[in-house]
Amino acid sequence: MALALALKSKVQSVIRNKWWWRKNRFAIASGGYHNQILKSPSLVSLDLDFPDDHQWTPPTSTNSNVPPSTNHLASEEIGRVIDGKQIAEEIISGVTVEVERMKKTIGEVPGLAVILVGERRDSQTYVRNKIKACEEAGINFSLTEFSDKCSEDEVCDAIMSFNMDPSFHGILVQLPLPQGLNEEKILDVLRLEKDVDGFHPMNMGNLAMRGREPLFIPCTPKGCIELLIRSGVEIMGKKAVVIGRSNIVGLPASLLLQRHHATVTVVDALTSNPEEITREADILVSAVGVPNLVRGSWLKPGAVVVDVGTYPIEDDSCEQGYRLIGDVCYEEASKVASWMTPVPGGVGPMTVAMLLYNTLESARRIYNFV
Amino acid sequence: MALALALKSKVQSVIRNKWWWRKNRFAIASGGYHNQILKSPSLVSLDLDFPDDHQWTPPTSTNSNVPPSTNHLASEEIGRVIDGKQIAEEIISGVTVEVERMKKTIGEVPGLAVILVGERRDSQTYVRNKIKACEEAGINFSLTEFSDKCSEDEVCDAIMSFNMDPSFHGILVQLPLPQGLNEEKILDVLRLEKDVDGFHPMNMGNLAMRGREPLFIPCTPKGCIELLIRSGVEIMGKKAVVIGRSNIVGLPASLLLQRHHATVTVVDALTSNPEEITREADILVSAVGVPNLVRGSWLKPGAVVVDVGTYPIEDDSCEQGYRLIGDVCYEEASKVASWMTPVPGGVGPMTVAMLLYNTLESARRIYNFV
Repeated sequence: MALALALKSKVQSVIRNKWWWRKNRFAIASGGYHNQILKSPSLVSLDLDFPDDHQWTPPTSTNSNVPPSTNHLASEEIGRVIDGKQIAEEIISGVTVEVERMKKTIGEVPGLAVILVGERRDSQTYVRNKIKACEEAGINFSLTEFSDKCSEDEVCDAIMSFNMDPSFHGILVQLPLPQGLNEEKILDVLRLEKDVDGFHPMNMGNLAMRGREPLFIPCTPKGCIELLIRSGVEIMGKKAVVIGRSNIVGLPASLLLQRHHATVTVVDALTSNPEEITREADILVSAVGVPNLVRGSWLKPGAVVVDVGTYPIEDDSCEQGYRLIGDVCYEEASKVASWMTPVPGGVGPMTVAMLLYNTLESARRIYNFV
Repeated sequence: MALALALKSKVQSVIRNKWWWRKNRFAIASGGYHNQILKSPSLVSLDLDFPDDHQWTPPTSTNSNVPPSTNHLASEEIGRVIDGKQIAEEIISGVTVEVERMKKTIGEVPGLAVILVGERRDSQTYVRNKIKACEEAGINFSLTEFSDKCSEDEVCDAIMSFNMDPSFHGILVQLPLPQGLNEEKILDVLRLEKDVDGFHPMNMGNLAMRGREPLFIPCTPKGCIELLIRSGVEIMGKKAVVIGRSNIVGLPASLLLQRHHATVTVVDALTSNPEEITREADILVSAVGVPNLVRGSWLKPGAVVVDVGTYPIEDDSCEQGYRLIGDVCYEEASKVASWMTPVPGGVGPMTVAMLLYNTLESARRIYNFV
């Protein structure tokens, strides 16, 4: 009981002294300032921030239905770009230093095995970017390719072989798989300790449940949160809306925002009048791949917009014959949002950076290297 | 490709012919009309209802910010009671018939092991209700009690012994555990195939992820959905708000509502102006245990209210010296809501009914009994 009271008092004092806490808990969570690459705290440490359910405060009489006017925002507070490319480079640079230290100290480097099935152009581009980043960071990389005619068993056999191979600490199956292959069956073969994409249901369950910590957080949602934190965006207590509820982005993004104590609404294609819901959002994460779905009129002035959507459109002027555009109409949104991520150069590079980070973390855990 | 097109066409025709689908898919999902106890469909069958993410419809110009007036609702459409007690009795009666059939056919009955640690009065009441219901349904029951001074290892040893015992198909650790016992460590020992409470992170992950089906859905949220379906409440495309995000109710309720294609917002103690969010809800599920938190003014006229909260208040006129009240101010809410669950007699009995159902399903699965 004394412990409970002490803990409660600690939580309350922590909430009062947010500044101190924010400044220090990253260090606490990661076991010290040394080797700190991400600014995201551990999820379990976030649970300490959360007041007991009984501490509901009575409703206030303020009417926040009145939308804030852009007049309240100075022009320099509108349309700021979250430079995902630069932030990702900083993170990859931190990973590189750690990989080098690991190599010098214990003579090992992290290893990532990627399995690519079929010939989707976008998947090939993503995998190429991952190989390039691994090479830069000194991470050992293996690519296994299958044609879209291959059997589930062939893919599963490859995964099982990497499961057993001690030189690979992460295994990634590039999604989506060609139709006809059972994604669930294939992903379930992947050893939990090497699931650097965080798509195993066990990792997803531990991401969802308060008091628990998944071995890996899916790379794209983790990248979104890191972008928010590095841009100084407060998440706790804010209204967040996630558009899309895919297993690989929308769902884990909504769970992760909840673990950061946002009030989260998930909007999908069946939501009527989605723009009314998004207009209430302090933070909007869109991840459906529908080009220009989110217009300027969908946003609350001063909102923070994270655009995960990528939709290839043909463009002969580009080297690859196509370019990517996002879910958000950038031109309109940049006149309303306070911060937003561009496409490309926003969330995309962060996904790669988080993959390298997760692979490093996996190797650290397996080698017990701190 | 032909298969994909055929499936898409099937999905579209299904959406057009909702009535046929709703009427028949329960039978499809459960393998026929025979032995159908619940009206809830399988989660994977629900995924078929969901249109492709690209099928976003352009926003309409209607302004649903204007709250509907109660004048539009006839007086008989207001304040209808969802009788959880009666619905639970119907379900338990269905379970009883199936248990009897199993006994006659293969000479086995389902078995449930409950572990109770400490002497919480409410936990003791819940366990007593579960024993009584099992006895009525013909389910074999075992209660193992520990004092709140016991060690984690003692509890884990008991769980492991039931994990191995083929006469028990479900194991339940009554929560909350006394402080000092590590809930995560204890629940993780529980064999997934016997986790009839559905609290294992693997079950939670499979509940969250589209295309997947958990072995068990947590009893209370599953009971809430069954109440809605049996009351004819449409969930798909509706706005649902869940108050509270506990691992045992709020979180799985929000995930389950999402699998049923509601647009879900999760409100917690850090949400500012929660009443503005709840006033948008077509369906409100409250699960925090804060008495009378939700007032009439928090509700949209015609909303459906599911009150999971139970808060004991002393009352000498009651046999047990206390009675339970809910999160929702019943008197006020019943003048605004179209349907609502009472406390007691709403969700509580459904939790017990779902526990028996999950135990039966576990035994069916283990014995391959259809």
